[in-house]
Amino acid sequence: MSSEARLHLAPLEQPLFAAHLFPADFGSRTATVERLARQLAASAVERDKAGGSAPAERELLRGSGLLTLAVPQQYGGQGVAWPEIYRIVRHLAAADSSLAHLFAFQHLQVATIQLFGSPEQQRHWLTRTVQENWFWGNATNGRDTGLALSPREEHFELNGSKSFCSGALGADALVISAPRGNRSEDRVFIVLPGGRDGMSVNSDWDGFGQRQTDSGTVQFEQVFVDSSELLGPVGPSPRTTLRACLSQLILTQLYLGNAQAAMDAALRYTREQSRAWPASGVAKASDDPFIQQRYGELWLRYRAAVPLAEQAAVRLQAAWEKSALTAAERAEVALAISEAKVVAVRAALDITSQIFENMGARATSSRYGFDRFWRNVRVHSLHDPVDYKVRDLGHWLLSGQGPQASLYS
Amino acid sequence: MSSEARLHLAPLEQPLFAAHLFPADFGSRTATVERLARQLAASAVERDKAGGSAPAERELLRGSGLLTLAVPQQYGGQGVAWPEIYRIVRHLAAADSSLAHLFAFQHLQVATIQLFGSPEQQRHWLTRTVQENWFWGNATNGRDTGLALSPREEHFELNGSKSFCSGALGADALVISAPRGNRSEDRVFIVLPGGRDGMSVNSDWDGFGQRQTDSGTVQFEQVFVDSSELLGPVGPSPRTTLRACLSQLILTQLYLGNAQAAMDAALRYTREQSRAWPASGVAKASDDPFIQQRYGELWLRYRAAVPLAEQAAVRLQAAWEKSALTAAERAEVALAISEAKVVAVRAALDITSQIFENMGARATSSRYGFDRFWRNVRVHSLHDPVDYKVRDLGHWLLSGQGPQASLYS
Amino acid sequence: MSSEARLHLAPLEQPLFAAHLFPADFGSRTATVERLARQLAASAVERDKAGGSAPAERELLRGSGLLTLAVPQQYGGQGVAWPEIYRIVRHLAAADSSLAHLFAFQHLQVATIQLFGSPEQQRHWLTRTVQENWFWGNATNGRDTGLALSPREEHFELNGSKSFCSGALGADALVISAPRGNRSEDRVFIVLPGGRDGMSVNSDWDGFGQRQTDSGTVQFEQVFVDSSELLGPVGPSPRTTLRACLSQLILTQLYLGNAQAAMDAALRYTREQSRAWPASGVAKASDDPFIQQRYGELWLRYRAAVPLAEQAAVRLQAAWEKSALTAAERAEVALAISEAKVVAVRAALDITSQIFENMGARATSSRYGFDRFWRNVRVHSLHDPVDYKVRDLGHWLLSGQGPQASLYS
Amino acid sequence: MSSEARLHLAPLEQPLFAAHLFPADFGSRTATVERLARQLAASAVERDKAGGSAPAERELLRGSGLLTLAVPQQYGGQGVAWPEIYRIVRHLAAADSSLAHLFAFQHLQVATIQLFGSPEQQRHWLTRTVQENWFWGNATNGRDTGLALSPREEHFELNGSKSFCSGALGADALVISAPRGNRSEDRVFIVLPGGRDGMSVNSDWDGFGQRQTDSGTVQFEQVFVDSSELLGPVGPSPRTTLRACLSQLILTQLYLGNAQAAMDAALRYTREQSRAWPASGVAKASDDPFIQQRYGELWLRYRAAVPLAEQAAVRLQAAWEKSALTAAERAEVALAISEAKVVAVRAALDITSQIFENMGARATSSRYGFDRFWRNVRVHSLHDPVDYKVRDLGHWLLSGQGPQASLYS
Repeated sequence: MSSEARLHLAPLEQPLFAAHLFPADFGSRTATVERLARQLAASAVERDKAGGSAPAERELLRGSGLLTLAVPQQYGGQGVAWPEIYRIVRHLAAADSSLAHLFAFQHLQVATIQLFGSPEQQRHWLTRTVQENWFWGNATNGRDTGLALSPREEHFELNGSKSFCSGALGADALVISAPRGNRSEDRVFIVLPGGRDGMSVNSDWDGFGQRQTDSGTVQFEQVFVDSSELLGPVGPSPRTTLRACLSQLILTQLYLGNAQAAMDAALRYTREQSRAWPASGVAKASDDPFIQQRYGELWLRYRAAVPLAEQAAVRLQAAWEKSALTAAERAEVALAISEAKVVAVRAALDITSQIFENMGARATSSRYGFDRFWRNVRVHSLHDPVDYKVRDLGHWLLSGQGPQASLYS
Repeated sequence: MSSEARLHLAPLEQPLFAAHLFPADFGSRTATVERLARQLAASAVERDKAGGSAPAERELLRGSGLLTLAVPQQYGGQGVAWPEIYRIVRHLAAADSSLAHLFAFQHLQVATIQLFGSPEQQRHWLTRTVQENWFWGNATNGRDTGLALSPREEHFELNGSKSFCSGALGADALVISAPRGNRSEDRVFIVLPGGRDGMSVNSDWDGFGQRQTDSGTVQFEQVFVDSSELLGPVGPSPRTTLRACLSQLILTQLYLGNAQAAMDAALRYTREQSRAWPASGVAKASDDPFIQQRYGELWLRYRAAVPLAEQAAVRLQAAWEKSALTAAERAEVALAISEAKVVAVRAALDITSQIFENMGARATSSRYGFDRFWRNVRVHSLHDPVDYKVRDLGHWLLSGQGPQASLYS
Repeated sequence: MSSEARLHLAPLEQPLFAAHLFPADFGSRTATVERLARQLAASAVERDKAGGSAPAERELLRGSGLLTLAVPQQYGGQGVAWPEIYRIVRHLAAADSSLAHLFAFQHLQVATIQLFGSPEQQRHWLTRTVQENWFWGNATNGRDTGLALSPREEHFELNGSKSFCSGALGADALVISAPRGNRSEDRVFIVLPGGRDGMSVNSDWDGFGQRQTDSGTVQFEQVFVDSSELLGPVGPSPRTTLRACLSQLILTQLYLGNAQAAMDAALRYTREQSRAWPASGVAKASDDPFIQQRYGELWLRYRAAVPLAEQAAVRLQAAWEKSALTAAERAEVALAISEAKVVAVRAALDITSQIFENMGARATSSRYGFDRFWRNVRVHSLHDPVDYKVRDLGHWLLSGQGPQASLYS
Repeated sequence: MSSEARLHLAPLEQPLFAAHLFPADFGSRTATVERLARQLAASAVERDKAGGSAPAERELLRGSGLLTLAVPQQYGGQGVAWPEIYRIVRHLAAADSSLAHLFAFQHLQVATIQLFGSPEQQRHWLTRTVQENWFWGNATNGRDTGLALSPREEHFELNGSKSFCSGALGADALVISAPRGNRSEDRVFIVLPGGRDGMSVNSDWDGFGQRQTDSGTVQFEQVFVDSSELLGPVGPSPRTTLRACLSQLILTQLYLGNAQAAMDAALRYTREQSRAWPASGVAKASDDPFIQQRYGELWLRYRAAVPLAEQAAVRLQAAWEKSALTAAERAEVALAISEAKVVAVRAALDITSQIFENMGARATSSRYGFDRFWRNVRVHSLHDPVDYKVRDLGHWLLSGQGPQASLYS
């Protein structure tokens, strides 16, 4: 494969990231994930500079065989549990945070079909996902009210636009959300093939981080929607609202992946390139007590965040597997994910900013691209405000009431 | 029992601390632990004010049947794994941090005999510990060089003093450390019954926190030591240095226990007694967005610390069970405990200080004793500097080398 | 004077606090202030332990001649500007935070008479203040609604109680506030001599800090109030609301004084008594890089706070001197004081807690009383929530609108 | 002027930054500074993206008449005191941090000639600076040892290179430093015209921030140096080491300027463009309590830093004016600047990162360029480690000894 050929890969025996710090054990998929991570990492700095789309790397994802991780085995997928999927997302995010985002959202769309589709729809779309190795995009930004679904005689029609549609560009199929009737709260998910007439994807994503997520605006002009393409009907239930939980915990992994990559890169740089500060009295930067201390501190930030993310994933999986999830059980999952997310965001922001103090001035050269970690986390962590996650926790502590299920919590 | 009789106990059905926040599941020992915690809590505020010794509460500990938790079943003990012991320590620390310290150090002395005693010594002392329901004290402060062990003709003699001897007052038996010969690094552990002639325990502990730990100075004047009372000989090995790990992880539980108790007490106070601030525009303090936020923040501090402590305990247990522990494996345990300890100290300091901002001025009345949480953590967290724990982590990240085994790491 | 005689004073040539760090220049009053500070400091630790009232030290304050600092020269007072008064308060707070509180509130009551009294009332009460060297107390807690002023035929009557009445015990005269009619917002200030019938001061202050502020509850039972004892009438104006500003900036000085004292005591202790940590590789604790660093950090907290307090005092003085203060000008003063207060509270909390990490475990002995700094700041900083000070600043930044004048801002 | 013509300038009556928050009063130079700031700001975002050199804007600086601020009046300059120069630098840094850097370093080179030049050299070079309106560059990076000054028969020769030579590209004249003889500590300053044969300036600066500072490498190949071009001889003295102080306080202004600009831009954005978060219950983002709070917090960071910078500038000016500056007096200046710098760096890093949480996800569009503030501060604050500034403060507090004069402190 040509896109693979042009990459200069280090031998697979050497893990991409320091193995004793960031163990990458994905069972039988370890070699596949590690290879994919290595391929993405090889050009991540250049592509971050370039921005725009990354079709070759999207093909790498497709070629990895990992797009069907979340598809149940009954439809030919791999039926992997969420904790393992999340760990893979985190590892890929350390290699390339933009592509990891697209990769993770693939599984979110697969889950959306499972949560909202009728049995027949699930069978139909998920089987095709496996058979045709589909890469899914989305147009589901819940705060954007610019898209309208209108009933026509025998079918429906979509008109308007959606912003922040990660992965929509070049997607084989899309999950789209639109208000059902007049109430913006009650929205319906629609599944469309990527090439449906009247749908166009703008290359207008220009965030200063997560630069290759293709998170542009999708325009809809008299787009035909067959009634079979409306997922459901599935009444609202605690179970369907797990979609927001799945999404929030994806974000968390991306923060942790960037934090991991930043730590790994910085430690390597300090060891190999940083010069000892004259006033330190030591010969090597690695022996500077304040550099040691700062790495210790940053590590503590990272280390405190990882178990919360792991625990939240285990809780989410348990909820996912429950046939009759209660609102209270769902709220517990949401709270656990909020804990993980807030701690991860802050750890990642601190780490990605402070590593520079341990590397020194020369590490700010653009050729290293070390600032991309902060830029990725800074952009991605604004998805929805952490302030309200913290408040939700406090409200729960004081009142015993969990957060309302919403698109973000 | 009279000391029990004078306590006004809430019915056991209501857990002492909010059960959904601080679950207290100790298997078959749950009722025992919960009852003990409740008994200690009933007078903890008064006893903190009084300082000094707490003989009645020491008898409660003795009467609980929990003094033999760490003694192997072959000697009649309960052979409970460290993670569970630590969880019990944490729960008792939330009720009474001083008594929990004495309780935890009981198990540290039992472990000392297991680590350093010959098989015969282990059998002898641990069997007696069970049969006579001994409460152990210690005189092992490693930085105090005031105690000398001198060979006499057929025996040895101890002369000098040791400071910070938690639990020595009224102990049935003591573990004592003294330099073996001239090198202060190489020390020997000695086991003596509490009433040995020439040994006196001063009531000179006057720390502003952990006020009932009886951490006074022990004086030794021509104290006879039989050679059989010297533990060992056991050559230095990674395994014996687990003693410092066991001790450090006890400290960690005490911080977490105080943090838990502070959170629990403050939440209750805010709900029941705090008045809404006029400018807040809300009717109840519990609805104040900044109070909710601060509880969310403090909770995140606590929540980030607990899994690290749990994971460290699991690692410690695995090392404890290993017949041939390597130095590298031992270092990994030490690093995991350092992570847990540093995060716990800081969480506990922040929580125990900031709860007041959520309760308001009237919560500073001495009758509540809410300041004892901060005082306990502040005093106890100075056992050894966290600065060097953080540096050790950074040094390990940069060099791959774990910390030197010492009395504190 | 006997209370002076029993104090063992260091010679005045040596300033009480490190002079290069905490310069104490009060012009012609330097020797007086320094002597008073030294007298208060001599027994501050013991008296903090004892709690209760400090009549001898109140006499020291009275004897210092400094009770008339704020009284205009036309009434025989010293007419000192607020920035200098605040500096004196701060210095005394470093010596004894409780007595400094009483001292500062003396000037607040004097200011209250200036703000709310008719010219005749000002002349009357302030002249007596000077001539009889009065020590003023107060019963003005604005959140306590338990006191009612009722018109009788020719006079008024006070019934009920007020909590947190600093300095009321043993006061020569009191400023008391009560709602005017039914609206709690509109309150009137009343001036009464200390011994008025029906008024009793409880010794029920039991805060864990600021232990000698005599901040007990005052009971009023059919207390006669002559109509001439009602200050005013003075219509509400930006100028009268400066009272809250004066009060808030007093609090700020107390935080800074405690922070200064904590830094001074800790530096001395580290230099003279702390032992180097074995792993540090240095011979003296003073050479430990992490101890140096922490002192540097704590110093930065203190140093950032002081200029804000100084600037706020200058602004307050300018407002005080303005004949026709506008609401906008008054709001600027309030914002400047909010800045100073919030930064000072946090600096003081951090400093008074973290000094212990630089001193080590032995510094927690009660004989030093080093925990009193944190206890004082913790208690005193709950007077009103800093959260709303911070919000006020943000609201002003976003809207251009200053805070509403209130009893606290 | 064409470069001016293409800029769309807002009328000068409206200040560039919110005037009540960031007053810009530069006396008689106010209009000039404000106009220049506006001109730089107009294209700052585009030029940040473009990187490289900014010749047109350098001409704006030259055309402003402000290049002679630091030149004494006796040589035809404006003889402005450092506090005012620093305030102008700060204001320009808020408009364009790269160009402000070049502008500030102009004055540093002028000062270098005053500190190290003989009276004749001062007269010569500073008169030409005024007459020919010179823009100075530098090649003085003290950690780069790649440049050698070698005596030839009647003259000297420079060979080698210097990195990080801000403003060297297109400079009319340069200040260059090289070791005098073999000892790298003892360096000599050399003044050369920009076009001297054998000297070439690389466009190799590629930092991710401060992108238009032209901080490339200067190559020297057999560059002729007349002995009259060596500044001095001036023996080392506390006075000459003020050069490092001048430089450090320039850095401080750049951090504050970026912090100011970030606050100003973010406040405007929140007011005008941010949408209220659904869960907030308020209609406008400006009314969100957590957004108000965060602005309050960020403002406190900024406000605490400014007075320290102002005070340090006043101290520096006093030292500058002293004929016989002692080492102790010089150390006090250095400490004051360290305080200001550390507090400013941290404030600026926090502000430039956290503003995004108050603006929301859409503010990360590259068209706003809001990330440049963080990138500028992050890059520029690595000039030398703040860790050692903090340690110096702690060392001074403990020992009374100020920092050693060096190129960085």
